[in-house]
Amino acid sequence: MDNVRVIEVKRSIFESNDQDADKLRSELKESKTFLLNLMSSPGSGKTTTLTRTIELLKDKYRIGVMEADIDSDVDAKTIAATGVKAIQLHTGGMCHLDADMTRQGIRELDTSDVDFAILENVGNLVCPAEFDTGSTKNAMILSVPEGHDKPLKYPLMFSICDVVLINKIDVMPYFDFDLEKCKEYILMRNPNAKVIPICAKTGEGMQEWADWLSENIEEAIK
Amino acid sequence: MDNVRVIEVKRSIFESNDQDADKLRSELKESKTFLLNLMSSPGSGKTTTLTRTIELLKDKYRIGVMEADIDSDVDAKTIAATGVKAIQLHTGGMCHLDADMTRQGIRELDTSDVDFAILENVGNLVCPAEFDTGSTKNAMILSVPEGHDKPLKYPLMFSICDVVLINKIDVMPYFDFDLEKCKEYILMRNPNAKVIPICAKTGEGMQEWADWLSENIEEAIK
Repeated sequence: MDNVRVIEVKRSIFESNDQDADKLRSELKESKTFLLNLMSSPGSGKTTTLTRTIELLKDKYRIGVMEADIDSDVDAKTIAATGVKAIQLHTGGMCHLDADMTRQGIRELDTSDVDFAILENVGNLVCPAEFDTGSTKNAMILSVPEGHDKPLKYPLMFSICDVVLINKIDVMPYFDFDLEKCKEYILMRNPNAKVIPICAKTGEGMQEWADWLSENIEEAIK
Repeated sequence: MDNVRVIEVKRSIFESNDQDADKLRSELKESKTFLLNLMSSPGSGKTTTLTRTIELLKDKYRIGVMEADIDSDVDAKTIAATGVKAIQLHTGGMCHLDADMTRQGIRELDTSDVDFAILENVGNLVCPAEFDTGSTKNAMILSVPEGHDKPLKYPLMFSICDVVLINKIDVMPYFDFDLEKCKEYILMRNPNAKVIPICAKTGEGMQEWADWLSENIEEAIK
Protein backbone atom coordinates (compact mmCIF):
# COMPACT_ATOMS: atom_id res chain seq x y z
CA MET A 1 0.00 0.00 0.00
CA ASP A 2 2.78 2.44 -0.87
CA ASN A 3 0.65 4.50 -3.18
CA VAL A 4 -2.51 4.82 -1.06
CA ARG A 5 -2.71 7.21 1.85
CA VAL A 6 -5.27 6.37 4.55
CA ILE A 7 -6.90 9.30 6.37
CA GLU A 8 -8.91 8.72 9.54
CA VAL A 9 -11.46 11.53 9.16
CA LYS A 10 -12.69 13.28 12.30
CA ARG A 11 -16.29 14.08 13.10
CA SER A 12 -17.15 17.65 12.15
CA ILE A 13 -17.07 20.33 14.83
CA PHE A 14 -19.25 22.67 12.79
CA GLU A 15 -22.81 23.21 13.88
CA SER A 16 -24.26 23.79 10.47
CA ASN A 17 -23.19 21.28 7.87
CA ASP A 18 -25.22 23.08 5.21
CA GLN A 19 -23.29 26.32 5.69
CA ASP A 20 -20.01 24.49 5.75
CA ALA A 21 -20.94 22.62 2.56
CA ASP A 22 -21.69 25.91 0.79
CA LYS A 23 -18.31 27.21 1.96
CA LEU A 24 -16.49 24.16 0.60
CA ARG A 25 -18.36 24.50 -2.70
CA SER A 26 -17.12 28.11 -2.99
CA GLU A 27 -13.57 27.07 -2.18
CA LEU A 28 -13.70 24.38 -4.87
CA LYS A 29 -15.08 26.87 -7.39
CA GLU A 30 -12.24 29.23 -6.51
CA SER A 31 -9.65 26.48 -7.06
CA LYS A 32 -11.39 25.40 -10.31
CA THR A 33 -12.04 21.86 -9.11
CA PHE A 34 -15.16 19.89 -9.95
CA LEU A 35 -16.16 17.61 -7.09
CA LEU A 36 -18.47 14.67 -7.75
CA ASN A 37 -20.11 12.92 -4.82
CA LEU A 38 -20.85 9.34 -5.90
CA MET A 39 -23.31 7.35 -3.80
CA SER A 40 -25.01 3.93 -3.93
CA SER A 41 -25.91 0.77 -2.01
CA PRO A 42 -23.10 -1.60 -1.12
CA GLY A 43 -22.11 -3.65 -4.15
CA SER A 44 -23.82 -1.66 -6.89
CA GLY A 45 -20.55 -1.17 -8.74
CA LYS A 46 -19.19 2.21 -7.68
CA THR A 47 -15.54 1.22 -7.89
CA THR A 48 -15.85 -0.55 -11.25
CA THR A 49 -17.77 2.43 -12.64
CA LEU A 50 -15.07 4.78 -11.37
CA THR A 51 -12.28 2.69 -12.88
CA ARG A 52 -13.98 2.85 -16.29
CA THR A 53 -14.70 6.56 -15.89
CA ILE A 54 -11.06 7.26 -15.08
CA GLU A 55 -9.91 5.33 -18.17
CA LEU A 56 -12.16 7.53 -20.32
CA LEU A 57 -11.15 10.86 -18.78
CA LYS A 58 -7.64 10.59 -17.36
CA ASP A 59 -5.88 11.92 -20.45
CA LYS A 60 -8.17 14.93 -20.49
CA TYR A 61 -8.26 15.95 -16.80
CA ARG A 62 -6.17 15.67 -13.65
CA ILE A 63 -8.21 13.31 -11.50
CA GLY A 64 -8.12 12.64 -7.75
CA VAL A 65 -10.25 10.09 -5.92
CA MET A 66 -11.28 9.87 -2.27
CA GLU A 67 -12.52 6.43 -1.26
CA ALA A 68 -14.66 6.53 1.87
CA ASP A 69 -15.09 3.30 3.77
CA ILE A 70 -15.84 2.21 7.28
CA ASP A 71 -12.82 -0.03 7.10
CA SER A 72 -10.49 -1.66 4.53
CA ASP A 73 -8.62 -0.07 1.64
CA VAL A 74 -9.44 -2.50 -1.17
CA ASP A 75 -11.18 0.17 -3.26
CA ALA A 76 -8.42 2.77 -2.94
CA LYS A 77 -5.88 0.18 -4.07
CA THR A 78 -8.01 -0.63 -7.13
CA ILE A 79 -8.30 3.06 -8.01
CA ALA A 80 -4.59 3.74 -7.41
CA ALA A 81 -3.84 0.99 -9.94
CA THR A 82 -5.41 3.18 -12.67
CA GLY A 83 -2.59 5.67 -12.10
CA VAL A 84 -4.59 8.55 -10.61
CA LYS A 85 -4.16 10.00 -7.15
CA ALA A 86 -6.22 7.98 -4.66
CA ILE A 87 -6.67 8.37 -0.94
CA GLN A 88 -8.64 6.26 1.50
CA LEU A 89 -10.90 7.99 4.01
CA HIS A 90 -11.77 5.90 7.04
CA THR A 91 -14.94 7.14 8.65
CA GLY A 92 -14.43 5.31 11.93
CA GLY A 93 -17.80 3.58 11.80
CA MET A 94 -19.66 6.66 10.56
CA CYS A 95 -22.25 5.92 7.91
CA HIS A 96 -21.75 9.05 5.81
CA LEU A 97 -19.41 11.95 5.10
CA ASP A 98 -20.25 15.56 5.85
CA ALA A 99 -18.66 18.69 4.39
CA ASP A 100 -15.89 18.97 6.95
CA MET A 101 -14.89 15.33 6.58
CA THR A 102 -14.86 15.84 2.80
CA ARG A 103 -12.65 18.92 3.25
CA GLN A 104 -10.13 16.81 5.21
CA GLY A 105 -9.90 14.54 2.17
CA ILE A 106 -9.78 17.44 -0.30
CA ARG A 107 -6.83 18.92 1.60
CA GLU A 108 -4.90 15.69 1.24
CA LEU A 109 -5.73 15.49 -2.47
CA ASP A 110 -4.44 19.04 -3.00
CA THR A 111 -6.82 20.73 -5.43
CA SER A 112 -4.11 22.85 -7.06
CA ASP A 113 -3.22 19.61 -8.77
CA VAL A 114 -6.73 18.28 -9.51
CA ASP A 115 -9.47 19.34 -11.99
CA PHE A 116 -11.83 16.47 -11.26
CA ALA A 117 -12.14 15.23 -7.69
CA ILE A 118 -14.36 12.28 -6.91
CA LEU A 119 -15.70 11.27 -3.53
CA GLU A 120 -16.83 7.65 -3.40
CA ASN A 121 -19.19 7.89 -0.44
CA VAL A 122 -19.98 5.06 2.02
CA GLY A 123 -22.22 2.37 0.47
CA ASN A 124 -25.59 3.38 1.92
CA LEU A 125 -28.79 4.77 0.43
CA VAL A 126 -29.94 6.52 3.59
CA CYS A 127 -27.43 8.61 5.57
CA PRO A 128 -25.19 9.99 2.80
CA ALA A 129 -28.29 11.63 1.29
CA GLU A 130 -28.83 13.62 4.47
CA PHE A 131 -25.44 15.35 4.50
CA ASP A 132 -24.38 17.86 1.86
CA THR A 133 -20.69 17.10 1.24
CA GLY A 134 -20.03 20.39 -0.55
CA SER A 135 -19.83 18.58 -3.88
CA THR A 136 -20.44 20.39 -7.17
CA LYS A 137 -22.77 17.59 -8.31
CA ASN A 138 -24.28 14.44 -6.80
CA ALA A 139 -24.54 11.16 -8.66
CA MET A 140 -25.78 7.76 -7.60
CA ILE A 141 -25.69 4.26 -8.98
CA LEU A 142 -28.67 1.94 -8.78
CA SER A 143 -27.86 -1.55 -10.02
CA VAL A 144 -30.37 -3.80 -11.78
CA PRO A 145 -30.27 -6.61 -9.15
CA GLU A 146 -31.44 -4.13 -6.48
CA GLY A 147 -34.81 -3.73 -8.18
CA HIS A 148 -36.67 -0.90 -9.88
CA ASP A 149 -38.66 0.03 -6.76
CA LYS A 150 -35.77 1.65 -4.88
CA PRO A 151 -36.81 5.28 -5.62
CA LEU A 152 -40.04 4.50 -3.74
CA LYS A 153 -38.14 3.29 -0.69
CA TYR A 154 -35.22 5.73 -0.52
CA PRO A 155 -36.87 8.97 -1.67
CA LEU A 156 -34.31 11.47 -0.36
CA MET A 157 -31.35 9.85 -2.12
CA PHE A 158 -33.07 10.01 -5.50
CA SER A 159 -34.32 13.55 -4.94
CA ILE A 160 -30.84 15.02 -4.31
CA CYS A 161 -29.03 13.36 -7.22
CA ASP A 162 -28.30 15.20 -10.47
CA VAL A 163 -27.60 11.93 -12.26
CA VAL A 164 -28.72 8.36 -11.65
CA LEU A 165 -26.67 5.66 -13.36
CA ILE A 166 -28.56 2.39 -13.75
CA ASN A 167 -25.74 -0.14 -13.68
CA LYS A 168 -25.41 -3.85 -14.56
CA ILE A 169 -27.89 -3.63 -17.42
CA ASP A 170 -26.15 -6.69 -18.91
CA VAL A 171 -27.91 -8.91 -16.34
CA MET A 172 -31.35 -7.42 -17.00
CA PRO A 173 -32.61 -10.72 -18.55
CA TYR A 174 -32.05 -12.53 -15.23
CA PHE A 175 -33.92 -10.08 -13.01
CA ASP A 176 -37.44 -8.67 -12.87
CA PHE A 177 -36.31 -5.14 -13.52
CA ASP A 178 -38.59 -2.70 -15.33
CA LEU A 179 -36.38 0.06 -16.75
CA GLU A 180 -39.26 2.30 -17.81
CA LYS A 181 -40.94 2.04 -14.42
CA CYS A 182 -37.62 2.75 -12.73
CA LYS A 183 -37.12 5.92 -14.79
CA GLU A 184 -40.67 6.97 -13.96
CA TYR A 185 -40.07 6.52 -10.20
CA ILE A 186 -36.76 8.42 -10.36
CA LEU A 187 -38.36 11.36 -12.19
CA MET A 188 -41.20 11.32 -9.66
CA ARG A 189 -38.57 11.98 -6.96
CA ASN A 190 -36.60 14.45 -9.06
CA PRO A 191 -37.96 15.68 -12.40
CA ASN A 192 -34.54 17.15 -13.28
CA ALA A 193 -32.52 13.99 -12.75
CA LYS A 194 -30.59 12.66 -15.71
CA VAL A 195 -30.91 8.88 -16.00
CA ILE A 196 -28.17 6.93 -17.82
CA PRO A 197 -28.36 3.12 -18.13
CA ILE A 198 -24.83 1.69 -18.10
CA CYS A 199 -22.83 -1.48 -17.77
CA ALA A 200 -19.52 -0.58 -16.19
CA LYS A 201 -18.23 -4.09 -16.91
CA THR A 202 -18.84 -4.01 -20.67
CA GLY A 203 -18.59 -0.23 -21.10
CA GLU A 204 -22.14 0.24 -22.41
CA GLY A 205 -23.47 3.74 -21.76
CA MET A 206 -20.16 4.90 -20.30
CA GLN A 207 -19.48 7.41 -23.07
CA GLU A 208 -22.73 9.25 -22.36
CA TRP A 209 -21.75 9.41 -18.69
CA ALA A 210 -18.22 10.64 -19.54
CA ASP A 211 -19.74 13.31 -21.82
CA TRP A 212 -22.00 14.54 -19.02
CA LEU A 213 -18.99 14.71 -16.71
CA SER A 214 -16.81 16.51 -19.28
CA GLU A 215 -19.47 19.14 -19.80
CA ASN A 216 -19.62 19.80 -16.05
CA ILE A 217 -15.86 19.68 -15.51
CA GLU A 218 -15.35 22.18 -18.37
CA GLU A 219 -17.84 24.50 -16.71
CA ALA A 220 -15.89 24.27 -13.42
CA ILE A 221 -12.37 24.75 -14.76
CA LYS A 222 -13.00 27.48 -17.34
CA MET B 1 -54.25 -1.01 2.42
CA ASP B 2 -56.96 -2.30 4.75
CA ASN B 3 -54.81 -5.08 6.18
CA VAL B 4 -51.59 -3.15 6.82
CA ARG B 5 -51.22 -0.83 9.76
CA VAL B 6 -48.60 1.92 9.42
CA ILE B 7 -46.81 3.02 12.61
CA GLU B 8 -44.71 6.18 12.65
CA VAL B 9 -42.09 5.15 15.20
CA LYS B 10 -40.68 7.80 17.52
CA ARG B 11 -37.05 8.31 18.33
CA SER B 12 -36.10 6.60 21.59
CA ILE B 13 -35.99 8.64 24.78
CA PHE B 14 -33.81 6.07 26.53
CA GLU B 15 -30.21 6.93 27.16
CA SER B 16 -28.87 3.43 26.97
CA ASN B 17 -30.10 1.45 24.01
CA ASP B 18 -28.11 -1.60 25.10
CA GLN B 19 -29.92 -1.76 28.45
CA ASP B 20 -33.26 -1.22 26.79
CA ALA B 21 -32.50 -3.96 24.26
CA ASP B 22 -31.72 -6.42 27.06
CA LYS B 23 -35.01 -5.46 28.70
CA LEU B 24 -36.98 -6.07 25.49
CA ARG B 25 -35.21 -9.43 25.05
CA SER B 26 -36.33 -10.46 28.55
CA GLU B 27 -39.90 -9.35 27.85
CA LEU B 28 -39.94 -11.39 24.66
CA LYS B 29 -38.57 -14.42 26.48
CA GLU B 30 -41.32 -13.98 29.07
CA SER B 31 -44.00 -13.88 26.39
CA LYS B 32 -42.42 -16.85 24.57
CA THR B 33 -41.82 -14.93 21.36
CA PHE B 34 -38.79 -15.42 19.13
CA LEU B 35 -37.76 -12.15 17.47
CA LEU B 36 -35.58 -12.24 14.38
CA ASN B 37 -33.88 -9.04 13.24
CA LEU B 38 -33.29 -9.34 9.48
CA MET B 39 -30.83 -6.94 7.89
CA SER B 40 -29.24 -6.38 4.47
CA SER B 41 -28.38 -3.86 1.77
CA PRO B 42 -31.22 -2.39 -0.25
CA GLY B 43 -32.38 -4.86 -2.87
CA SER B 44 -30.70 -8.02 -1.58
CA GLY B 45 -34.03 -9.84 -1.39
CA LYS B 46 -35.24 -9.49 2.21
CA THR B 47 -38.92 -9.38 1.33
CA THR B 48 -38.80 -12.28 -1.14
CA THR B 49 -36.84 -14.35 1.39
CA LEU B 50 -39.42 -13.53 4.06
CA THR B 51 -42.32 -14.47 1.81
CA ARG B 52 -40.76 -17.88 1.16
CA THR B 53 -39.90 -18.33 4.85
CA ILE B 54 -43.47 -17.57 5.85
CA GLU B 55 -44.79 -20.13 3.34
CA LEU B 56 -42.56 -22.79 4.95
CA LEU B 57 -43.42 -21.96 8.56
CA LYS B 58 -46.85 -20.42 8.75
CA ASP B 59 -48.71 -23.66 9.45
CA LYS B 60 -46.33 -24.42 12.29
CA TYR B 61 -46.07 -21.05 14.05
CA ARG B 62 -48.05 -17.87 14.55
CA ILE B 63 -46.01 -15.30 12.62
CA GLY B 64 -45.99 -11.50 12.79
CA VAL B 65 -43.87 -9.22 10.62
CA MET B 66 -42.72 -5.64 11.15
CA GLU B 67 -41.55 -3.96 7.97
CA ALA B 68 -39.30 -0.99 8.66
CA ASP B 69 -38.88 1.56 5.91
CA ILE B 70 -38.05 5.21 5.55
CA ASP B 71 -41.13 5.58 3.42
CA SER B 72 -43.61 3.51 1.39
CA ASP B 73 -45.57 0.42 2.38
CA VAL B 74 -44.91 -1.84 -0.61
CA ASP B 75 -43.17 -4.52 1.47
CA ALA B 76 -45.82 -4.69 4.19
CA LYS B 77 -48.47 -5.14 1.50
CA THR B 78 -46.49 -8.03 -0.02
CA ILE B 79 -46.12 -9.70 3.38
CA ALA B 80 -49.77 -9.16 4.31
CA ALA B 81 -50.72 -11.00 1.12
CA THR B 82 -49.18 -14.17 2.60
CA GLY B 83 -51.91 -14.09 5.26
CA VAL B 84 -49.75 -13.31 8.31
CA LYS B 85 -50.00 -10.24 10.49
CA ALA B 86 -47.93 -7.43 8.98
CA ILE B 87 -47.33 -3.90 10.14
CA GLN B 88 -45.33 -1.14 8.53
CA LEU B 89 -42.93 0.89 10.66
CA HIS B 90 -42.04 4.28 9.24
CA THR B 91 -38.75 5.49 10.69
CA GLY B 92 -39.19 9.10 9.62
CA GLY B 93 -35.90 9.26 7.76
CA MET B 94 -33.97 7.34 10.45
CA CYS B 95 -31.50 4.84 9.06
CA HIS B 96 -31.97 2.12 11.67
CA LEU B 97 -34.25 0.87 14.45
CA ASP B 98 -33.27 0.80 18.09
CA ALA B 99 -34.82 -1.26 20.90
CA ASP B 100 -37.49 1.25 21.82
CA MET B 101 -38.60 1.70 18.22
CA THR B 102 -38.78 -2.10 17.92
CA ARG B 103 -40.87 -2.24 21.09
CA GLN B 104 -43.37 0.18 19.56
CA GLY B 105 -43.79 -2.29 16.71
CA ILE B 106 -43.90 -5.34 19.01
CA ARG B 107 -46.73 -3.71 20.97
CA GLU B 108 -48.77 -3.32 17.79
CA LEU B 109 -48.08 -6.92 16.79
CA ASP B 110 -49.28 -8.15 20.19
CA THR B 111 -46.93 -10.95 21.21
CA SER B 112 -49.65 -12.93 23.04
CA ASP B 113 -50.69 -13.85 19.56
CA VAL B 114 -47.24 -14.39 17.96
CA ASP B 115 -44.56 -17.12 18.36
CA PHE B 116 -42.28 -15.88 15.65
CA ALA B 117 -41.86 -12.12 15.18
CA ILE B 118 -39.71 -10.77 12.37
CA LEU B 119 -38.29 -7.29 12.08
CA GLU B 120 -37.28 -6.43 8.54
CA ASN B 121 -34.81 -3.66 9.30
CA VAL B 122 -34.02 -0.67 7.04
CA GLY B 123 -31.92 -1.66 3.99
CA ASN B 124 -28.48 -0.57 5.16
CA LEU B 125 -25.27 -2.43 6.09
CA VAL B 126 -23.96 0.26 8.43
CA CYS B 127 -26.31 1.81 10.99
CA PRO B 128 -28.63 -1.13 11.84
CA ALA B 129 -25.53 -3.04 12.99
CA GLU B 130 -24.82 -0.38 15.59
CA PHE B 131 -28.15 -0.62 17.41
CA ASP B 132 -29.23 -3.72 19.31
CA THR B 133 -32.96 -4.04 18.60
CA GLY B 134 -33.59 -6.49 21.45
CA SER B 135 -33.96 -9.34 18.98
CA THR B 136 -33.40 -12.96 20.00
CA LYS B 137 -31.20 -13.53 16.94
CA ASN B 138 -29.75 -11.43 14.13
CA ALA B 139 -29.66 -12.54 10.51
CA MET B 140 -28.48 -10.81 7.39
CA ILE B 141 -28.72 -11.38 3.68
CA LEU B 142 -25.83 -10.77 1.33
CA SER B 143 -26.78 -11.20 -2.31
CA VAL B 144 -24.41 -12.50 -4.97
CA PRO B 145 -24.51 -9.33 -7.14
CA GLU B 146 -23.17 -7.30 -4.19
CA GLY B 147 -19.85 -9.15 -4.27
CA HIS B 148 -17.96 -11.46 -1.95
CA ASP B 149 -15.82 -8.69 -0.47
CA LYS B 150 -18.58 -7.14 1.64
CA PRO B 151 -17.46 -8.67 4.98
CA LEU B 152 -14.19 -6.76 4.50
CA LYS B 153 -16.02 -3.47 4.06
CA TYR B 154 -18.83 -3.75 6.59
CA PRO B 155 -17.14 -5.62 9.45
CA LEU B 156 -19.57 -4.79 12.25
CA MET B 157 -22.64 -6.07 10.39
CA PHE B 158 -21.05 -9.45 9.76
CA SER B 159 -19.67 -9.72 13.29
CA ILE B 160 -23.08 -9.31 14.99
CA CYS B 161 -25.06 -11.74 12.82
CA ASP B 162 -25.85 -15.28 13.93
CA VAL B 163 -26.71 -16.30 10.38
CA VAL B 164 -25.68 -14.97 6.98
CA LEU B 165 -27.88 -15.99 4.05
CA ILE B 166 -26.10 -15.72 0.71
CA ASN B 167 -28.99 -15.02 -1.64
CA LYS B 168 -29.47 -15.07 -5.44
CA ILE B 169 -27.09 -17.98 -5.92
CA ASP B 170 -28.99 -18.71 -9.16
CA VAL B 171 -27.22 -15.78 -10.85
CA MET B 172 -23.76 -16.84 -9.67
CA PRO B 173 -22.65 -17.68 -13.26
CA TYR B 174 -23.16 -14.05 -14.30
CA PHE B 175 -21.12 -12.46 -11.51
CA ASP B 176 -17.54 -12.71 -10.25
CA PHE B 177 -18.59 -14.09 -6.88
CA ASP B 178 -16.30 -16.45 -4.99
CA LEU B 179 -18.48 -18.37 -2.50
CA GLU B 180 -15.57 -19.97 -0.65
CA LYS B 181 -13.78 -16.66 -0.26
CA CYS B 182 -17.01 -15.08 0.93
CA LYS B 183 -17.48 -17.76 3.62
CA GLU B 184 -13.86 -17.29 4.69
CA TYR B 185 -14.34 -13.50 5.05
CA ILE B 186 -17.58 -13.97 7.02
CA LEU B 187 -15.96 -16.44 9.44
CA MET B 188 -13.04 -14.04 9.83
CA ARG B 189 -15.53 -11.49 11.18
CA ASN B 190 -17.52 -14.00 13.20
CA PRO B 191 -16.25 -17.58 13.62
CA ASN B 192 -19.65 -18.65 15.00
CA ALA B 193 -21.75 -17.39 12.11
CA LYS B 194 -23.82 -19.92 10.23
CA VAL B 195 -23.65 -19.39 6.47
CA ILE B 196 -26.49 -20.65 4.27
CA PRO B 197 -26.44 -20.14 0.49
CA ILE B 198 -30.01 -19.70 -0.77
CA CYS B 199 -32.09 -18.65 -3.72
CA ALA B 200 -35.32 -17.19 -2.38
CA LYS B 201 -36.74 -17.09 -5.91
CA THR B 202 -36.28 -20.82 -6.66
CA GLY B 203 -36.43 -22.05 -3.07
CA GLU B 204 -32.92 -23.52 -3.01
CA GLY B 205 -31.45 -23.71 0.49
CA MET B 206 -34.66 -22.43 2.07
CA GLN B 207 -35.36 -25.66 3.95
CA GLU B 208 -32.02 -25.45 5.78
CA TRP B 209 -32.87 -21.87 6.75
CA ALA B 210 -36.37 -22.87 7.90
CA ASP B 211 -34.87 -25.69 9.98
CA TRP B 212 -32.48 -23.31 11.69
CA LEU B 213 -35.38 -21.00 12.47
CA SER B 214 -37.61 -23.84 13.75
CA GLU B 215 -34.89 -24.99 16.12
CA ASN B 216 -34.58 -21.48 17.55
CA ILE B 217 -38.31 -20.83 17.69
CA GLU B 218 -38.86 -24.14 19.54
CA GLU B 219 -36.23 -23.08 22.06
CA ALA B 220 -38.06 -19.79 22.62
CA ILE B 221 -41.61 -21.09 22.95
CA LYS B 222 -40.99 -24.22 25.06
